[in-house]
Amino acid sequence: MFEATKAQFELPEGVIYLDGNSLGPLPKGAAGRVARTMTEEWGKRLIRGWNDAGWMAAPERIGDRIAPLVGAPAGSVTMGDTLSIKMFQALAAALGLAPEGRRVVLSDEGNFPTDLYMADGLLAALGRGHELKVVAPEAVEDAIDESVAVLMLTEVDYRTGRLHDMARLTAKAHAAGALAVWDLAHSAGALPIDLEGAGADFAAGCTYKYLNGGPGAPAFIYVAPRWADVARPILSGWLGHEAPFAFDLDYRPAPGVARMRVGTPPIIALASLDAALDVWDGISLAEVRRASLALSERFIAEVEARCPMLTLASPRDGAERGSQVSFRHPEGYAIMQALIARGLIGDFRAPDALRFGFTPLYIDEGDVMAAVAILEEVMAGRLWDRPEYRKRARVT
Amino acid sequence: MFEATKAQFELPEGVIYLDGNSLGPLPKGAAGRVARTMTEEWGKRLIRGWNDAGWMAAPERIGDRIAPLVGAPAGSVTMGDTLSIKMFQALAAALGLAPEGRRVVLSDEGNFPTDLYMADGLLAALGRGHELKVVAPEAVEDAIDESVAVLMLTEVDYRTGRLHDMARLTAKAHAAGALAVWDLAHSAGALPIDLEGAGADFAAGCTYKYLNGGPGAPAFIYVAPRWADVARPILSGWLGHEAPFAFDLDYRPAPGVARMRVGTPPIIALASLDAALDVWDGISLAEVRRASLALSERFIAEVEARCPMLTLASPRDGAERGSQVSFRHPEGYAIMQALIARGLIGDFRAPDALRFGFTPLYIDEGDVMAAVAILEEVMAGRLWDRPEYRKRARVT
Repeated sequence: MFEATKAQFELPEGVIYLDGNSLGPLPKGAAGRVARTMTEEWGKRLIRGWNDAGWMAAPERIGDRIAPLVGAPAGSVTMGDTLSIKMFQALAAALGLAPEGRRVVLSDEGNFPTDLYMADGLLAALGRGHELKVVAPEAVEDAIDESVAVLMLTEVDYRTGRLHDMARLTAKAHAAGALAVWDLAHSAGALPIDLEGAGADFAAGCTYKYLNGGPGAPAFIYVAPRWADVARPILSGWLGHEAPFAFDLDYRPAPGVARMRVGTPPIIALASLDAALDVWDGISLAEVRRASLALSERFIAEVEARCPMLTLASPRDGAERGSQVSFRHPEGYAIMQALIARGLIGDFRAPDALRFGFTPLYIDEGDVMAAVAILEEVMAGRLWDRPEYRKRARVT
Repeated sequence: MFEATKAQFELPEGVIYLDGNSLGPLPKGAAGRVARTMTEEWGKRLIRGWNDAGWMAAPERIGDRIAPLVGAPAGSVTMGDTLSIKMFQALAAALGLAPEGRRVVLSDEGNFPTDLYMADGLLAALGRGHELKVVAPEAVEDAIDESVAVLMLTEVDYRTGRLHDMARLTAKAHAAGALAVWDLAHSAGALPIDLEGAGADFAAGCTYKYLNGGPGAPAFIYVAPRWADVARPILSGWLGHEAPFAFDLDYRPAPGVARMRVGTPPIIALASLDAALDVWDGISLAEVRRASLALSERFIAEVEARCPMLTLASPRDGAERGSQVSFRHPEGYAIMQALIARGLIGDFRAPDALRFGFTPLYIDEGDVMAAVAILEEVMAGRLWDRPEYRKRARVT
């Protein structure tokens, strides 16, 4: 089904790449697109590129390409900065819209740490007695009460792939009078998302995982249309101003989601992302999801049958899981090094998770079976037990 | 003197480019470097690029290439985000280090508006009664008193090129017990800067102007070594964490300037910047400054002699000016359109400034004389007075 999309990626010989949940591979069109942006636009148009080549409008134009992938209406998504920054903006704006007197930002231990760190930094700076309450993922629903100002969650757990029910939790937050901010890092491009249908207030996501935009590609932010003209930007940068080139001394936010722009858009990085989004033309996320679940279920069944030392860390029920599968083992770090040395690239997340992503755009059943064979070889032979695999790099 | 550097840029035929103060031109090595980063590193190394290809260390490695251009010691500069974000971080950190009870952030009307907007957003969020006091540039020195928490200035005025005396104003701020945060947008790469000698506390700058990193290239931030281990990051992102890959739930800032990192570094954009910095190898900023002043003084003399309708907006004394020259005219917008139509690219800044940058890396005296000839032709013939030049684009 996805043979045509697989052909659109540069996949190195001898590598099975099950780490698209961390960094998507290079789409074949991306390097050429970036080269043209650099030589034809920057090189020849110089400063005129901001108008002539559409650079200034790129964040909203590309946001409109991402919108249908996350169930957002046109005009509700813009691009820029990093996911950490976009979550900071979203949380700050949501706190500004929450009922007076509420002091709890509710999150969970499955949230990616940067969201918690950014929330910490924000709440400490605000100095208004807000509390970041971090509960177990399964305790979130019961913890939503009328003390909560904002529910801030990552839909798919970065370690286990555990999937939150965005619609149900958002509805419960709203019923309690709170707002809901969603991090879509491990969701966007992995499974169907319906931000509008779920009633999410704000969301943000990254584009270098399942959207294949390249290392450090710009993030996106969604603002529900009902908030777009009233949300107050804490990062009130000039390119979110109503009239940036009037150079007024006072800030007036632009109408709509454009107020979430901050500084000058990263044009070269956006060109790579723009090319990567071409791969998605005509792709059904429902089909991606169906194929991803089929691949990951096959993987789970084979690994459990052939590698009994590994313990499934992900939910067994596909409906409760994103498109990644994690197994636990106390020697997880060294095992992953041994796998990578044999051409199977997944990744390790402390303390003990081996993480594998199943992205049908470029992974097929043959890849899954080849991956299982390598994993079985490493596990059965205890091949991880070598000094070179145990030595941790400075950065994993 | 700079023939060799001029040859390192792609400069389109028929264009005289006096707008490097807004967007530097494409260095010849940049597109190839980016293509290699995409195809050889991202394409072949995939996720392993973070270690193998040095991506994770890129912000500090490239920061160390910028440090000598701004008079900063090694290890005091890191890269990422945009100048607006970096100024927000710098101001927030400086406020956290200012004496208790001080409530004034002092700036001036010559500051680039985004710095004022970001300060507005920050101070409103803090809600501690801080005041952003914006005075005329010439009134800054007298306004530094013991109410001031932080002096936040752009060294070179984006409209007129007026140059603040960083050392004197920083010393005065320190004598009053305040901290000094400098925006180097129009300084870095344009003139010698001595952050360490001046005693600046924090600084930030952009790399797409005189450093030629490309449209929307990442910003840099400098933290004085005395503050690097104590400044509290308001944008406490995971890549500024002491141990990002431990995935702890609690934030602990990294030692040194690395705590000013936020999210995942923009690798493709950094590759372009890295190539652009090669041009600076072996270049003396004192020579750049000398040549830039010679070019701009020749320009001023010729324009004043040959275009009497234009009024100099920049300081006449080169020692009080950065590397740009601005002239005022009520029809400035249309005049600039007429100039651009004839191949002379400068830019217009509302309400009435025609802005021209003199960057000896790729501008020589022949360019200056050709520019003056075009300007004289347009002014003498009132060639701006055509409907197509008066119609304003959506974005200037």
